[in-house]
Amino acid sequence: MSLLVVGSIALDTVKTPFGERADILGGAASFFSVAASFFAPVRLLGVIGEDFPECHVDLLRSRGIDLRGLERRSGGKTFRWSGSYEGRMDVATTRDVKLNVLGDFKPTVPDAYLDSAFVFLANTDPVTQAHVVRQIPGRKFAMLDTMNLWIDTKRADLVDALRLVDGVVMNDEEARSLGGSSNLIFAMNALSNLGARLIVVKKGEHGAVMLRNGEFFALPAYPLDAVKDPTGAGDTFAAGFMGHLAATGDTSWSNLKRALAYGTVTASFTVEDFSLDRLLAIERADLDRRLAAFVSMVTW
Amino acid sequence: MSLLVVGSIALDTVKTPFGERADILGGAASFFSVAASFFAPVRLLGVIGEDFPECHVDLLRSRGIDLRGLERRSGGKTFRWSGSYEGRMDVATTRDVKLNVLGDFKPTVPDAYLDSAFVFLANTDPVTQAHVVRQIPGRKFAMLDTMNLWIDTKRADLVDALRLVDGVVMNDEEARSLGGSSNLIFAMNALSNLGARLIVVKKGEHGAVMLRNGEFFALPAYPLDAVKDPTGAGDTFAAGFMGHLAATGDTSWSNLKRALAYGTVTASFTVEDFSLDRLLAIERADLDRRLAAFVSMVTW
Repeated sequence: MSLLVVGSIALDTVKTPFGERADILGGAASFFSVAASFFAPVRLLGVIGEDFPECHVDLLRSRGIDLRGLERRSGGKTFRWSGSYEGRMDVATTRDVKLNVLGDFKPTVPDAYLDSAFVFLANTDPVTQAHVVRQIPGRKFAMLDTMNLWIDTKRADLVDALRLVDGVVMNDEEARSLGGSSNLIFAMNALSNLGARLIVVKKGEHGAVMLRNGEFFALPAYPLDAVKDPTGAGDTFAAGFMGHLAATGDTSWSNLKRALAYGTVTASFTVEDFSLDRLLAIERADLDRRLAAFVSMVTW
Repeated sequence: MSLLVVGSIALDTVKTPFGERADILGGAASFFSVAASFFAPVRLLGVIGEDFPECHVDLLRSRGIDLRGLERRSGGKTFRWSGSYEGRMDVATTRDVKLNVLGDFKPTVPDAYLDSAFVFLANTDPVTQAHVVRQIPGRKFAMLDTMNLWIDTKRADLVDALRLVDGVVMNDEEARSLGGSSNLIFAMNALSNLGARLIVVKKGEHGAVMLRNGEFFALPAYPLDAVKDPTGAGDTFAAGFMGHLAATGDTSWSNLKRALAYGTVTASFTVEDFSLDRLLAIERADLDRRLAAFVSMVTW
């Protein structure tokens, strides 16, 4: 089934202990759409500026991603993010952000996308997320990502948005913050009580845990002895998760478990190199091989 | 098969967001021996002072723990630890330590214990750990725990000790420190290169991961929405792990995986109340029921 992603497309400058790269392809929707294209037909809704290199557009097109919702704004500049990672590399330090064309992006879903069955609302203002999801009343499953900025400044709007969708994905600090407890499980139960139907929490090197209808499921991360660049890990985790759901059209609890495993192994490739370099160097069979290896590392 | 534990017996004063308790039963060997007694016949080697309440001795005896190696030192005082936990409760803040009789404890393994098949060396000076394990040449499987103090002050002795035993267990900060990398998987591989045969890393709310012969296995923690007192979690984790190995006499990789799951659920009970209160309120069947529930939360 079709999988629509709405979110940012960026030019990133990233510094990690393994090097520094300037103006590389970034943004949640870029990471998500490329990673999800291993699984299902992907539709992209986003905005870029005049300065966005055509080679990146060609790359997205080469992955079979539907770009009818990609707007190139004349006279505008592409969203830019600059960040760095140190030590355990679990937190990015933002050095600079320029919203540029993303600043006033109010996405209108093109007619060609209105029959999208699966919808991923990458991190943005929850008012915008609600605006988008309301345009696709026939969707089968929608999920949103968020960040501390919205938890701190637009909490009520975020709670409204999470009640509109079928699932939310966030990292563990965000879940503890929105759920109001330093105990993650308590916080996830609180999010459930707020109206979230499915809560997926990403914990980086510590794996992921999800909750639906009072049932928990958790997985450790795939063990990696070198993480070159964690940028995009969360977005490609969501892409593996949503991609598997869209590919199978199955949102049962048992298939959500398998989707969490696909999210885990997809993200594990992403962080092995900068930008999308590692994901672009593998094939679907590599994902399935790593999933099989992962199974033997987490089941007994 | 018999399971010998060598380690501290303490009177703890503990403060957590859920309350404060003074002079409660603590110490690694107390936690370990009670928890392991669900699984296998346990032998205790440790020292207490004149002030140690007889009711605690009765408690240990009531669990069938062999106390022939329990020395009550005339004129001495029992080891005391006072600590507190805040926020996420993942780190104890030590408020006071009085080694007392533990200060010059050089354990001699009693003749009655010399045929112990499984040996757990709870955290203490690695020179003492090596001294103990050398007294039991016929052991089948010995494992040691350690702490940052020894990594920082007796690194060479610790490396010598870990080469003598079949496995080491430590928390993730300790593993990163001894392994010399902020990447846990890299650090575990480094410990393997140092000569550790089995490396088990405890990550508290994030579960556990182990490595042997180049193979990794990882489990998330059992999801708990309230942790009252984390004291003893690591020791009872080790007890569930070693207890299952001793009960089955099987140290194959597949049985180590099951042992890690038993360690996980055993520790999950411990932290639900102060001291050993929760473990003393359950039966072996409760451990097995939680293990079954845990399986459905981590396999797909």
